Amino acid sequence: MSNAELQPVLDRIDADFDNSLERLFALLRIKSISADPAFAGDCKAAADYLAKDIATLGLTAEVRPTAGHPAVVARMNGAGAGGRPHVLFYGHYDVQPVDPLNLWHRPPFEPVVTDHADGRKIIVARGAEDDKGQLMTFVEACRAWKQVTGSLPVDVTIIIEGEEEVGSKNFVPFLEKNKDDLKADFALVCDTGMWDQNTPAITTSLRGLVYDEVKIKAASRDLHSGLFGGGAQNPIRVLTRILGGLHDDNGHITIPGFYDGVKDLPPDILAQWKSLNMTPDSFLKPIGLSLPAGEKGRLLIEQVSSRPTCDINGIIGGYTGEGSKTVIPAEASAKISFRLVVGQDPEKIRKGFREYVTSRLPADCKAEFTDHSTAPGFALDWNMKPLAAARRALTDEWGKEALMIGSGGSIPIVSDFKRTLGLDTVLVGFGLDDDNIHSPNEKYDLKCFHKGIRSWARILGAFAETPR
Amino acid sequence: MSNAELQPVLDRIDADFDNSLERLFALLRIKSISADPAFAGDCKAAADYLAKDIATLGLTAEVRPTAGHPAVVARMNGAGAGGRPHVLFYGHYDVQPVDPLNLWHRPPFEPVVTDHADGRKIIVARGAEDDKGQLMTFVEACRAWKQVTGSLPVDVTIIIEGEEEVGSKNFVPFLEKNKDDLKADFALVCDTGMWDQNTPAITTSLRGLVYDEVKIKAASRDLHSGLFGGGAQNPIRVLTRILGGLHDDNGHITIPGFYDGVKDLPPDILAQWKSLNMTPDSFLKPIGLSLPAGEKGRLLIEQVSSRPTCDINGIIGGYTGEGSKTVIPAEASAKISFRLVVGQDPEKIRKGFREYVTSRLPADCKAEFTDHSTAPGFALDWNMKPLAAARRALTDEWGKEALMIGSGGSIPIVSDFKRTLGLDTVLVGFGLDDDNIHSPNEKYDLKCFHKGIRSWARILGAFAETPR
Repeated sequence: MSNAELQPVLDRIDADFDNSLERLFALLRIKSISADPAFAGDCKAAADYLAKDIATLGLTAEVRPTAGHPAVVARMNGAGAGGRPHVLFYGHYDVQPVDPLNLWHRPPFEPVVTDHADGRKIIVARGAEDDKGQLMTFVEACRAWKQVTGSLPVDVTIIIEGEEEVGSKNFVPFLEKNKDDLKADFALVCDTGMWDQNTPAITTSLRGLVYDEVKIKAASRDLHSGLFGGGAQNPIRVLTRILGGLHDDNGHITIPGFYDGVKDLPPDILAQWKSLNMTPDSFLKPIGLSLPAGEKGRLLIEQVSSRPTCDINGIIGGYTGEGSKTVIPAEASAKISFRLVVGQDPEKIRKGFREYVTSRLPADCKAEFTDHSTAPGFALDWNMKPLAAARRALTDEWGKEALMIGSGGSIPIVSDFKRTLGLDTVLVGFGLDDDNIHSPNEKYDLKCFHKGIRSWARILGAFAETPR
Repeated sequence: MSNAELQPVLDRIDADFDNSLERLFALLRIKSISADPAFAGDCKAAADYLAKDIATLGLTAEVRPTAGHPAVVARMNGAGAGGRPHVLFYGHYDVQPVDPLNLWHRPPFEPVVTDHADGRKIIVARGAEDDKGQLMTFVEACRAWKQVTGSLPVDVTIIIEGEEEVGSKNFVPFLEKNKDDLKADFALVCDTGMWDQNTPAITTSLRGLVYDEVKIKAASRDLHSGLFGGGAQNPIRVLTRILGGLHDDNGHITIPGFYDGVKDLPPDILAQWKSLNMTPDSFLKPIGLSLPAGEKGRLLIEQVSSRPTCDINGIIGGYTGEGSKTVIPAEASAKISFRLVVGQDPEKIRKGFREYVTSRLPADCKAEFTDHSTAPGFALDWNMKPLAAARRALTDEWGKEALMIGSGGSIPIVSDFKRTLGLDTVLVGFGLDDDNIHSPNEKYDLKCFHKGIRSWARILGAFAETPR
């Protein structure tokens, strides 16, 4: 995209920024809390608002029902037919609940621009970042292109869901059902973060998740440890013995086959990550720790983003009140989750874990399992062409090389796009670590919103020059 | 003791049994619940009743204050001066609370004799066994001797406390303070059980107890397992790894020095215990288990009574509610208790456990400990003379050889007698496993009460013939 074509679009964004902000504020004022049925009407209102707004971009926008809150689907007429790149943009209009309300410094649905303690201008409201602010960076970028050139530089389909914060359980069936209207070359998601305030980033890998609960049962009732201690199985002892063996001395997970399919990073990415200098001092010190606790021989940044993990998230058994009770409980249970990387099969991991447990059960013990979550890991092909285009555009906007990073967390929608629609996803976002998403006083840096819009304008321009 | 001397005493017991029962009922009607301050007056009333009753045996009986509920101290004039054996009898007049009241078939403080489902006659009331019924077997035996012969066959001091059910925390200072009045050759306690309905038993060993709580702390706050998983220490992982290593594959406890001082049973006792035939079927099946879970190579009866143990009585950490939460908690804790046997030093065991934990802590983890309980194990010298006398007397009364058994539980008072007064304790009792002590519908078999009185009469007679 020549500067001559792009510059007027960027100028338009700068000139119209106050209006962009007002359109975001209008969306932020809608209390679209998906978790609370009392706000179902507000969720519908947010969908209606977005459909109406997106229609002004020249897309045919509809609010479509799901088994839960509705989704917005907006398509450019003839998208995909003209040989131009065709992107499917995804965002979500629903927000987290606002409790505890007393910790908010202002009402969560009355957005304002205010000053952060360090002088940064910030937008404060529930959803300011996650995901209303982020999704509007894309919408506003499209608007600028439309206003300046009369059209968008690439074919665009937009889908905005309303149940991301409650697990998107109706979204995959919806994708299946609306498959024909959601065809595209690849997907874009704006729900991730920058590396830091000045360094843009593309999230090219996400970890998957297998979350299981195990309950070990022994005697038919709680026992007195004086009368039965030594002779009766103690399920807490059994549970700790089994879970305590899940890692070896080097921090490796001992479940047979656990690392099958896990690949090392390409040398250039590893070199790039190394140069990011994520140190124990920068990453662990703020949480009171000093030494990486993961696999020996791996960088800290690998441990938290590109390597699979096993964590015990909860454990309970026996007497846990004040003081002491000499009880041998009848059962004990734990919640265990595995962060997975691409190449690992979640069902195989779950099966491996359960076999690991059951094969170690002593006589008279039973194990019961509950499946709480299953999502595979995700990693983009590092050589995917739109990735290079997006990276170049971000680097141009921020004046600093855009990083390709892995996120330790899970965004199941990315796997859903691949599985349901066959699409790879480029994740670009402008969130910062201190945005307080899901917490009181959620914020979005004004600069992130403004430069986020400019970033998408550049990225769309760069895609237009990228062969399909 | 010749039959000629003993028989009239036994006959007297039989003839006076209805009156013995009425005296026990009068005591059972007093609501001496030590745990509830509302019943402090009833506790005092129970002490007064006993002091007055015991005075009729020719002892100087006093109700003496403690820092809590009062104790009864009764001494025979000139006890210990005449060269006769001198026993110190211990019992407690306080009882457990009665909740849940709705599970009682009759009011707990309105004693009755009724029929058990299998036809046995039983006394039902709170305290019927523990310990009013049991202590009265001794008092009634003394009464028969006194009424028939005008005196008791041995020198007797009696101490009845009122805080056994709330941990006897004021009792050791009381023992210290009243040391001079509590001198004796050995102590007798009637607060234990028979082997079964027809087989009398002397409890010759009790396990001690070290009860510790450990809290493992890592990060300064709860963490998200997606962002930090793999890089941050997980205190549940640390806790399970450490606790999971407390036993080896053979069920042995791995703390260095744990078994120091632990002796095997003498061959004749081991043979006797073997012949008792405590099988998994008889002991474990009723609680839904089938195989002994303790040290390999030990009899089940050894595992639960003469061997030291380690049990995790409670564990908690992280998210334990419904569903799932991807949290790495800041801390996790567990309650761990050790049943000890004679020869083990509780403080050394506690120190060994804490060192075991702290020496295994990875970087960035701290362990905090709370001491909940400390009591050494106890075992009588198998060759102690009064033991043989008591055994012979019990065997004569029940027509079945009295067993010398170990109890897996702890009776701290026994160690207190040794430490404070230098006395060994012979534990003889007539409780049965189905007496529901501490539970609704507590009972004492009428036969146990009757033959318990006769047993003590015989034992006192046997002691009289035993050189000091």
